[in-house]
Amino acid sequence: MKSAQDSDLLQAFAAEIRARRTATGDSQEALAFKASLNRTFVAKLELAQTSPSLSTLFRLAAALQVAPAELVGSVSQRYRRQA
Amino acid sequence: MKSAQDSDLLQAFAAEIRARRTATGDSQEALAFKASLNRTFVAKLELAQTSPSLSTLFRLAAALQVAPAELVGSVSQRYRRQA
Repeated sequence: MKSAQDSDLLQAFAAEIRARRTATGDSQEALAFKASLNRTFVAKLELAQTSPSLSTLFRLAAALQVAPAELVGSVSQRYRRQA
Repeated sequence: MKSAQDSDLLQAFAAEIRARRTATGDSQEALAFKASLNRTFVAKLELAQTSPSLSTLFRLAAALQVAPAELVGSVSQRYRRQA
């Protein structure tokens, strides 16, 4: 996976988190609090400026009340649609 | 998710990658090559000494010929069993 693909993947992840967050009506701050993450880190994730670690992925899934596998599946779909 | 939970998650990920890699008969080197990763990084992942980024997760899934969501689902199951 070359870096262009990496950034496409981060874009897909960013779009998925933003879509799920706004669907719950949460602010970035509320999501960050629920996931025990820093608000600016959530903002960077939603701008595809940083990559989530495995535990960040699981924390965000829990905060968004979705199974980690389902979240990753949705990201995969967005990523394939972008390709 | 506190740091103990983070390390449990990395243990689950390590075990899942090792199980899938050995099931394919690949060496760490062969898996690293397929995933365009460094061999020592794969070794560290399998020792739960480092956390995979999102793109590393997708690269390893592709190299192990499994959907990223399925890989994450298996890691989740191992993680819950450990808890």
